[in-house]
Amino acid sequence: MNKDVGNLQSFRKSIKLVDATLRDGGIVNSFYFPEGFAKALYKANLEAGVDIMEFGYKVSKKLFDVNKFGEWKFCDEENIRAVVGENRTDMKIAVMSDVGRVDLKTEVIPKKDSVIDIFRIAAYCHQVPAAIEMVEFCHKMGYFTTCNIMAISKNQESDLIRALEILAQSPVDVIYIVDSFGSLYPEEIRRICDMYGEVAYKYNKQLGIHAHNNQQLAFANTIEACAKGVDYLDATVCGMGRGAGNCYLEAMLGFLKNPKYRMEPVLKFVREHMTPLKASGVVWGYDVPYLLTGLNNVHPYNAIDFIKAGRDDYENFIQEILAVD
Amino acid sequence: MNKDVGNLQSFRKSIKLVDATLRDGGIVNSFYFPEGFAKALYKANLEAGVDIMEFGYKVSKKLFDVNKFGEWKFCDEENIRAVVGENRTDMKIAVMSDVGRVDLKTEVIPKKDSVIDIFRIAAYCHQVPAAIEMVEFCHKMGYFTTCNIMAISKNQESDLIRALEILAQSPVDVIYIVDSFGSLYPEEIRRICDMYGEVAYKYNKQLGIHAHNNQQLAFANTIEACAKGVDYLDATVCGMGRGAGNCYLEAMLGFLKNPKYRMEPVLKFVREHMTPLKASGVVWGYDVPYLLTGLNNVHPYNAIDFIKAGRDDYENFIQEILAVD
Repeated sequence: MNKDVGNLQSFRKSIKLVDATLRDGGIVNSFYFPEGFAKALYKANLEAGVDIMEFGYKVSKKLFDVNKFGEWKFCDEENIRAVVGENRTDMKIAVMSDVGRVDLKTEVIPKKDSVIDIFRIAAYCHQVPAAIEMVEFCHKMGYFTTCNIMAISKNQESDLIRALEILAQSPVDVIYIVDSFGSLYPEEIRRICDMYGEVAYKYNKQLGIHAHNNQQLAFANTIEACAKGVDYLDATVCGMGRGAGNCYLEAMLGFLKNPKYRMEPVLKFVREHMTPLKASGVVWGYDVPYLLTGLNNVHPYNAIDFIKAGRDDYENFIQEILAVD
Repeated sequence: MNKDVGNLQSFRKSIKLVDATLRDGGIVNSFYFPEGFAKALYKANLEAGVDIMEFGYKVSKKLFDVNKFGEWKFCDEENIRAVVGENRTDMKIAVMSDVGRVDLKTEVIPKKDSVIDIFRIAAYCHQVPAAIEMVEFCHKMGYFTTCNIMAISKNQESDLIRALEILAQSPVDVIYIVDSFGSLYPEEIRRICDMYGEVAYKYNKQLGIHAHNNQQLAFANTIEACAKGVDYLDATVCGMGRGAGNCYLEAMLGFLKNPKYRMEPVLKFVREHMTPLKASGVVWGYDVPYLLTGLNNVHPYNAIDFIKAGRDDYENFIQEILAVD
C-alpha cells in the first residue's frame, strides 16, 4: 500500500461511488423496471453526488432475446440518451459487458459518438486474456475501462496473481475485486486488497470493489476495502441485486465523508420508487438460503430457486448445495 | 493484546456463543412469546452447541407491571425451571438486570438454589459504580457475572477507560462492549477492543460483544471483535432484537469453526418458530430509519416510533433526530 488512505474523520477525493442499481438490480426483474424509474434514479444519483451510474449490460441481441428482457439488458445508445440527454453533468455513465457476450466490432460505437463513458468488462479469472482483448478494444474506442474479475473466492491466489499481473499491464483503468458469492469475510477482503494493491499500484491502476450481501457483509466489506485504499465502490439502492443483493447505496452515502455526497435524494427515491417496486413483488435481499450459499462459497442460483419454490427445508438445502459444488 | 486469537481456519476454545433471543428479542414483543417457543429454543440451542442462553430480564415487579409483560421480563425461577428442569447440560443460563431495576436482596436467591448461572448487569458508563455493587452482590451469591456497559458510542474514551479501570478490579468475570445504537464501524470496534483489552487482560477479565444491526454491521462487528480476542459473542435467532436487531445466531454458527457448533437445529427453529412469529406481525430488522439513527448515533426509539406510525418521510426524520439529540 503506497497511498494515503485517510481515516474515518477525513475523506479522499479519489473515491468514486458507483450506483449499479439498474444493472445488478436488473438481474432480479429481468431489467423490467417501471416507466420513469431510470430517469428518477438518474436524477437522484445526480443530486446525491454519485460519481458513476451503471445503466445495465451491453450484450449482443444475437445471444439474448430482446423480448425476454427489459431495455437495460442491452443499453442501446438511444435508450440511455432518452434518460440522460447529452449527460452534461459530472456523473459518468457506465455499462457492463461479460466476456464473449457482445460483438464489439458491430455493437460498440466510438466514445465520441456515445454518451457512455465507461465499459466494465466482467470476466472469470481464466477469461482475463479475453477480457484484456475487450479492454484494449474499448480503450482504443476512447472509453474508460474496468475489469471485474468475478467469483474470486473460487480461485487459487497464485492463479489470481498471475491474471492480475497481465491485466495490470493492459490499458485497463480499474481492477475490481468481486465477491460474487458473498462468501468473503472482512479479514479476507483486507488480505485481498493487499494482494490486488501490490500488483495494481505497481502499474498505476486503481482498484474497485463489488460486494454481495449473502452474509450481511456487503457494506462492511466495502468500507473495509475503502479503508485499504480501494477507490471504486459499488452499491445499489436498497441493496437491490441478484439474490441477497449488494451494498446499500444509502449506507455508503451516509458513511462517506466527502460533503458532496447527499443522502436525502436517494431516500426520496427509496420512498417513491423502491418501496412500490418491493410492494409489486420484486424480491431480493438477505435470507437464510443466501447465508448458506455464501457460507459454503457456491453460486446463489440454487438459493434463488429454493426461495422461488417456496421451500424452507434448509437442512436438505445444505446437503443439496454441498452435493452440486 | 496478549492472547492467541487463532485465525479463520482455526478455532479457540475460549469462545462462548450467547443466544440472547428471549431477552433482546423480547423487547420487540413485550416478552409475549408463543406457547412452547422458549422450550423449543432451549432445545435448539442445546443441539446447536450454544454456550449460554439468556432467558430474559430479571427486573423488580415493583417497578414493572406483570400484566404488561410476558414472563421473560421477570425470569421467575419456576418459569425457567419449567423450560430447563435442573438444566443438567453444558449450556449455562443467563439473565440480565439493569442497574437499579431489581431489588437484589429480596429478588435474587443464592446460586445454589437457582438454575440461573450468570447475571449480566447492564449499565451506562456513569452507572458503573452502581453496577459494581450489583456485581459484588451477585458474585457473593455464587453467580458468574458480566457487566455490559451500554451506549458507549456516546461516551468519551477517557471516561470509559476510568470506568473500565474500576470495573476490572471488581469480581466481574466478563466486560461487554455494547454498541447500543448500531453506530460503530468495524474500524472503531477494533480500536475499542484494543482499549478494553488493555484494561481487562491486565486484571484477567474476559471480553464480550453485543452488536446491533442498524447499519447492517452487527455480524461484521462481532466477528471482527472475535478476531481481536473477544470471547463472549452475543447473537439472536434471525437477529431478533430491538429495532434493527442483533447479530444473527445462524450466521455465527456458520462462521465459528469449533466443530461442536451445529447450524441445523437453529435453522429448524427458524422454520418452525421464527417464520410463524414474523408472519404473526412481530417486526424487527434493518430498515432505513435504523440506518439513520445508527449513522447519527442516537437511540433507535425514534425510529421504532417512525416505523410504527407508518411514516416514510425520511428527510424530515433526519431533521427530527438531529433536533432531539
